Amino acid sequence: LREAIRSERLRPGTRLPSSRTLAVDLGIARNTVADAYGQLVAEGWLASRSGSGTWVAERTTPVQVPATPAGQGVGRFRYDLRPGTPNLAAFPRSAWLTAARRVLSTSSYDVLGYSDPRGLLPLRTALADYLSRARGVAVAPDGIVVCAGFTQGLELLCEVLRGRGAACLAVEAYGQDLSQRIAEAKGLATMTLPVDAGGAAVDQLGDTEAVLLTPAHQFPLGVPLDPLRRRHIVEWASHTGALIVEDDYDGEFRYDRRPVGALQALAPEQVVYAGTASKSLAPGLRLGWLVLPTHLVEEVAAAKARLGRLSSSLDQLVLAELIASGAYDRHVRRSRLTYRWRRDRLTATLRRDVPEVRVTGIDAGLHALVELPDGDSEDDIVARAATHGLALDGLSRYRLGQQPHSPALVLGYATPPDHAYTTALARLAAVLTSQPQASEVERIGPHVGTPSDERVLPW
Amino acid sequence: LREAIRSERLRPGTRLPSSRTLAVDLGIARNTVADAYGQLVAEGWLASRSGSGTWVAERTTPVQVPATPAGQGVGRFRYDLRPGTPNLAAFPRSAWLTAARRVLSTSSYDVLGYSDPRGLLPLRTALADYLSRARGVAVAPDGIVVCAGFTQGLELLCEVLRGRGAACLAVEAYGQDLSQRIAEAKGLATMTLPVDAGGAAVDQLGDTEAVLLTPAHQFPLGVPLDPLRRRHIVEWASHTGALIVEDDYDGEFRYDRRPVGALQALAPEQVVYAGTASKSLAPGLRLGWLVLPTHLVEEVAAAKARLGRLSSSLDQLVLAELIASGAYDRHVRRSRLTYRWRRDRLTATLRRDVPEVRVTGIDAGLHALVELPDGDSEDDIVARAATHGLALDGLSRYRLGQQPHSPALVLGYATPPDHAYTTALARLAAVLTSQPQASEVERIGPHVGTPSDERVLPW
Repeated sequence: LREAIRSERLRPGTRLPSSRTLAVDLGIARNTVADAYGQLVAEGWLASRSGSGTWVAERTTPVQVPATPAGQGVGRFRYDLRPGTPNLAAFPRSAWLTAARRVLSTSSYDVLGYSDPRGLLPLRTALADYLSRARGVAVAPDGIVVCAGFTQGLELLCEVLRGRGAACLAVEAYGQDLSQRIAEAKGLATMTLPVDAGGAAVDQLGDTEAVLLTPAHQFPLGVPLDPLRRRHIVEWASHTGALIVEDDYDGEFRYDRRPVGALQALAPEQVVYAGTASKSLAPGLRLGWLVLPTHLVEEVAAAKARLGRLSSSLDQLVLAELIASGAYDRHVRRSRLTYRWRRDRLTATLRRDVPEVRVTGIDAGLHALVELPDGDSEDDIVARAATHGLALDGLSRYRLGQQPHSPALVLGYATPPDHAYTTALARLAAVLTSQPQASEVERIGPHVGTPSDERVLPW
Repeated sequence: LREAIRSERLRPGTRLPSSRTLAVDLGIARNTVADAYGQLVAEGWLASRSGSGTWVAERTTPVQVPATPAGQGVGRFRYDLRPGTPNLAAFPRSAWLTAARRVLSTSSYDVLGYSDPRGLLPLRTALADYLSRARGVAVAPDGIVVCAGFTQGLELLCEVLRGRGAACLAVEAYGQDLSQRIAEAKGLATMTLPVDAGGAAVDQLGDTEAVLLTPAHQFPLGVPLDPLRRRHIVEWASHTGALIVEDDYDGEFRYDRRPVGALQALAPEQVVYAGTASKSLAPGLRLGWLVLPTHLVEEVAAAKARLGRLSSSLDQLVLAELIASGAYDRHVRRSRLTYRWRRDRLTATLRRDVPEVRVTGIDAGLHALVELPDGDSEDDIVARAATHGLALDGLSRYRLGQQPHSPALVLGYATPPDHAYTTALARLAAVLTSQPQASEVERIGPHVGTPSDERVLPW
């Protein structure tokens, strides 16, 4: 009946058979029909009056089922060398499932309720252990607030900063525009800090109340923050009372020596350390964490609770179990080997086939900077790549300020699955040498013996 | 050792026994001790120099473990009869695990990346099927936006409404204060609609641009919206272009006849239908969904994407699998039987032991309204209950406007695990009859033959 009314096969005002008649017709109990009529009256599809029977209710508007909205912008490329996503094909599915089984068979049921806004204690405990061990963070479980990825963490921080009267967040002149948008959505102005081969120019901070940095591995330029600048900014923050937000998005992945430890350990009361499972496991988990100065824990937790922004309990517990069981460490170690191999393949391929580009920012992380010859156009190359089914990002895509730069690509080498990586690199070389076919390029590509990976930035 | 150092039982400078000595004392391998020492050195708790042994490190600032934020409302009660949380002990753990295994072994890896802001297609498809079947919602997968629970959904809607220039959201005079806070945080004023035995007084809406309703089962009063009012409000929205937000938080649970279908089906272009897994499965999942009018889908999805507010991919896919496999329906059916049984036990216990209260709002949902004799104080009873380890909520806790009411409790009967439910009810009866011991109450409680569940509201 509902469908018939919705589709206007039954028009408003149409009388329905009595419940007795319809029951006989359908061979069912009269009460069943009467219940259905009552139900549809309660829902507003039918109307009835005692003694006058039942009819289709009047409606002022026709009922339409909403149609598909136009293009949500999920582009379809065969090969994706844009930065920001790890190798999802290597997600540790069976370790995750094992951990999930353990969590589901051992957890108390109350973890499935509305829980501590800081996140569940087993995860905060596991993270405190992991972060102090792997990243040198000075942390106790009570100083951690788990959040739905870095973006939510930054959102909460901006909200609290704004609430405390802060007016401005400084960001690096190259980075994710999402960070800028979040700050601005929360009512903070943003200023940009120039970035050079030593990372952000932290001596130009002035009197901003907070600064967002990627000290271990500048995104997207790939340089670590210079040791003197590390000390300078910590002193600046201690002196001015400003807050440093340390975005340690891929701190686990450093290839040629031990990772640069967290800046946070130098000044736990001035630095918020922000980490995420988006690069080490998968962005789809929406799990990140803030390690907070004592004076911020309560406010950030309250901001999170205020708008009900909690994270999935099950995912939290599974991640805790993964860390506690050692499976997370094993996954990170395995990933590090894979990514190093990929990085080496990338630099070797470009050195051989496209010697005129320079590859920098390759000590760590899941992306490199491919510096193009002056005169090349990022936009042209990105567009040409698209016609080869290859997704690329130009450096301009990540420019937040006015700082000029020579043309470059920000190249993520983690995303293609293993079997597609070689082809993706061949296409990249083909695009960069303007050859239409990857196979041709491999045939004609010169072998060049001189390395081109000196870490010189083009401005 | 960490604890001893943190609590200053071991002071800075204190020498530790050599790893060999400690290993012998504890009867464990020397390497184990050496590893632990190395770890604590790396974490900054200990210091060591080759040849000089190991000692407790100096620290310039005492390391304070941030304290637990004050009262986040995670009270510790033995028995919880507050509304809002389902029976978490009945969470379908093994069905969830089976679905997770299937998802992890069959999904394409790209679902673990940054995904469609509307949510993953398999979940939207499963929800469209389920909602039209179980709740009579007029919906296609493309009209759904998955969100991290109802609160995020409301947050997104308020953001979009505000962006379109709306100034005000009307809410029911009794409800969750979180809704009001969300609207206000997004810059919308709120007005309250009086609620009576026919639900919200929708004829008093005036010229607000949007209204939030619980038509199937008013929260917390428990009445369905009167059929004439359903029609009235849909016409009002069509006429004024205003938006109705239908919060169908526990629509699946109706006990004595079929659930009241969604209001949304009467006017899909005027109504946003909001549903959640928080009552049917567990709040800890942080999964909800909006069924949107065509003209809102793109804007809400964009608002969700803009601040990176995505939901866990794995949980989305597991829920999709649960629905598609029929396990979700089975769980809902089983829960419905349990909750009906609990409701019947509640009404029977109070009728027998505390005949002076009236229990209303019991046709549906996971809570009832327990109307107290005039002159009783909600606060006194809630405080007295707390001394019995019993958590209760007075109706005042949910009053958003100025509307006066007779004293009442909003009693959630879903939360205690099965084995504790009988005792929880006995404590409730004891508290309501001011007897100190539940056992005494059971001895002296009169058997009263006259039912007292006429559905009369006390104002």
